[in-house]
Amino acid sequence: MHLHDLIRQLREPNQSKIVMLVADGLGGLPLVPEGKTELEAAHTPHLDAAARDGICGLCVPVLPGITPGSGPGHLSLFGYDPLEYRIGRGVLEALGINFPVGPQDVAIRGNFCTIDEQGLITDRRAGRPSTERCIEVCALLKRIEVPGVELFVEPVREHRFVLILRGEGLGDQVNDTDPQGLGLAPLPAQGGDEPSRRTAEVVNRFIAEAGRLLRREAPTNMITLRGFAKYPPIATMEEIYGLRCVAIAVYPMYKGLARLVGMTVADCGTTLEEQIDTLTRLWDDYDFFFLHYKYTDSTGEDGNFLAKVQMIEKLDEVVPAIRMLRPDVFIVTGDHSTPSKLRSHSWHPVPTLLVADTVRTDGVEGFSEAACLHGGLGQFEAKHLMLLAMAHARRLGKYGA
Amino acid sequence: MHLHDLIRQLREPNQSKIVMLVADGLGGLPLVPEGKTELEAAHTPHLDAAARDGICGLCVPVLPGITPGSGPGHLSLFGYDPLEYRIGRGVLEALGINFPVGPQDVAIRGNFCTIDEQGLITDRRAGRPSTERCIEVCALLKRIEVPGVELFVEPVREHRFVLILRGEGLGDQVNDTDPQGLGLAPLPAQGGDEPSRRTAEVVNRFIAEAGRLLRREAPTNMITLRGFAKYPPIATMEEIYGLRCVAIAVYPMYKGLARLVGMTVADCGTTLEEQIDTLTRLWDDYDFFFLHYKYTDSTGEDGNFLAKVQMIEKLDEVVPAIRMLRPDVFIVTGDHSTPSKLRSHSWHPVPTLLVADTVRTDGVEGFSEAACLHGGLGQFEAKHLMLLAMAHARRLGKYGA
Repeated sequence: MHLHDLIRQLREPNQSKIVMLVADGLGGLPLVPEGKTELEAAHTPHLDAAARDGICGLCVPVLPGITPGSGPGHLSLFGYDPLEYRIGRGVLEALGINFPVGPQDVAIRGNFCTIDEQGLITDRRAGRPSTERCIEVCALLKRIEVPGVELFVEPVREHRFVLILRGEGLGDQVNDTDPQGLGLAPLPAQGGDEPSRRTAEVVNRFIAEAGRLLRREAPTNMITLRGFAKYPPIATMEEIYGLRCVAIAVYPMYKGLARLVGMTVADCGTTLEEQIDTLTRLWDDYDFFFLHYKYTDSTGEDGNFLAKVQMIEKLDEVVPAIRMLRPDVFIVTGDHSTPSKLRSHSWHPVPTLLVADTVRTDGVEGFSEAACLHGGLGQFEAKHLMLLAMAHARRLGKYGA
Repeated sequence: MHLHDLIRQLREPNQSKIVMLVADGLGGLPLVPEGKTELEAAHTPHLDAAARDGICGLCVPVLPGITPGSGPGHLSLFGYDPLEYRIGRGVLEALGINFPVGPQDVAIRGNFCTIDEQGLITDRRAGRPSTERCIEVCALLKRIEVPGVELFVEPVREHRFVLILRGEGLGDQVNDTDPQGLGLAPLPAQGGDEPSRRTAEVVNRFIAEAGRLLRREAPTNMITLRGFAKYPPIATMEEIYGLRCVAIAVYPMYKGLARLVGMTVADCGTTLEEQIDTLTRLWDDYDFFFLHYKYTDSTGEDGNFLAKVQMIEKLDEVVPAIRMLRPDVFIVTGDHSTPSKLRSHSWHPVPTLLVADTVRTDGVEGFSEAACLHGGLGQFEAKHLMLLAMAHARRLGKYGA
């Protein structure tokens, strides 16, 4: 039986509230053998108290050894098997700029590039134009029309934009037109099946027209297209769990991911304090609160151990305000690890705590990778976290008689 | 998605080296309650140092409670789900004598037995002939011809030999002809489907002819056949992982298993020291080194606790020579447990360590069942070990954006 069907069958409504605080890229590594991770080095009295009051463990985002991107990392936490639900790169890029992708859409990542008089690429990123310039050139492309299809051209930043085709019967089995090298011409789009041939035909017309409009716009005088992706069919969290879900996230990508699973996306400002204010303001209106904190990831990606420590300490400071709302289930976790030592996402399991009045005592005295290793949740797959959340919220009935 | 497809999609080549040292039947049991296992009793300063430097855990070969044979035990370690990839006994026996089994072959285990004048079995093992005698009698059987099929008869040892049929359209759904009791006649072979009926017809002719040739060769005057098996379709490790793999194993069975997954089988002598010399000699030519050590299993099967302790200590002595090569990932594990208390393979999880510069500290101070229980790898399925090896070798890219 599909996990979602099991939940649909067992779920029981009540008034409980669940807060899932996702510290992006939370898990880390020590810089030296036997040293401390970022979380272990941070002074986190409030997270430590939550770890003592709750139950802890290490959450495996996808499988041992598999490093997730933000998409699979968050889908797992929301209870979607990341190997079953795959979000194409074009859709993720569109979600990242908060474009409301829909079921009829094919989303495509676009790059501005530079071509010479023979049409051969001399710079795959068009000299990295400013984002202002990107917006200007996208304005030119917005003029393009192809009969029978609605087109959206949206700037991302620098040389990157998103192209969305909206229409009946469009497929996404289309090759990247970026030839991945210099001195080569962009490739024509070709479809792998009938609907995708229709998509290819549309984008080849789009590309030809773009070439004409951009002829005098060097270095941004051509485009390449990549990551053709349709919006995936996916059940909403409300439909699966019976929870009214709201996302309190600052960055567009995470708003987009939340919208993908049917969450309401709150207008929540840009600071952590504003996020907490938003949580408080919306407390009565929702059952599940996804609170996203970006800076544990971005500092890890910068390779800045101390900055990540500080960002963890900053997060720690808002924990009392969240717990004052008395959520029935309070979870702190991450979508993956981002050790500053590696300057990238990694496969290492993510420290996780869950506070509820139905947890067993596990003797964990603080919130850290080392302590969570001996926690009562053990090492578990992230896709099962929502089951634990629902259970501790007393929202799941008995399976079988 | 199949795990192998995921790996094919994510793998990224680099120059890293992975050494997997498999101490066959490594895990053990204490002889008395609260006693030490063989590994715990052994003096293993170098393995203990590796456990301190690395991350430890307990590896479950198939599923909790399932005792694997050598085939499933090794397939798991190589990243093949042992419940999906099944190797029939005939094929394993043929691999064990280093016979190059191919995709057209049906491999069958043969026993010499003794029959009386009524054709009823009086000794199912023909009085356990010497291996020299086995070779002599096999030479007689090699004369047998059956039109349309190529036949190979290869001695194993004592009363055991292997029969291989090579030809088009042969099946392996054929019953054992051993009636499993005395005073009974060998059973005729019968096929469960059309290709297998063809196999049965071939072997029935072979058995009849064998009976004539062996008439005057009592006690080895008849044969029984068991474990009919076709060569399984299986992707090579190089094709899955992009690793150039070499096996440094002394015993034929393990060479055969390695060859089955596409490894090059090195000529490596017969001693552990020669195996290490081979490892050193081949260091530049391969990416993945499977080093097999048999004696932790054979002493366990003998029920000789002290001998197993000594064999573990002998293995410990070569660890520095392996680590001096500075492998990026160094793994020590086993294909299953073989507690001398049980004198057999068992289902108990296998102590495992992994050294790499990307491991978290887990506080494990020595290499033992008890210490590994608290290790950072937790208890994990053996089939995921190669994912961890690939991740720590930095050979796996990010899954999803």
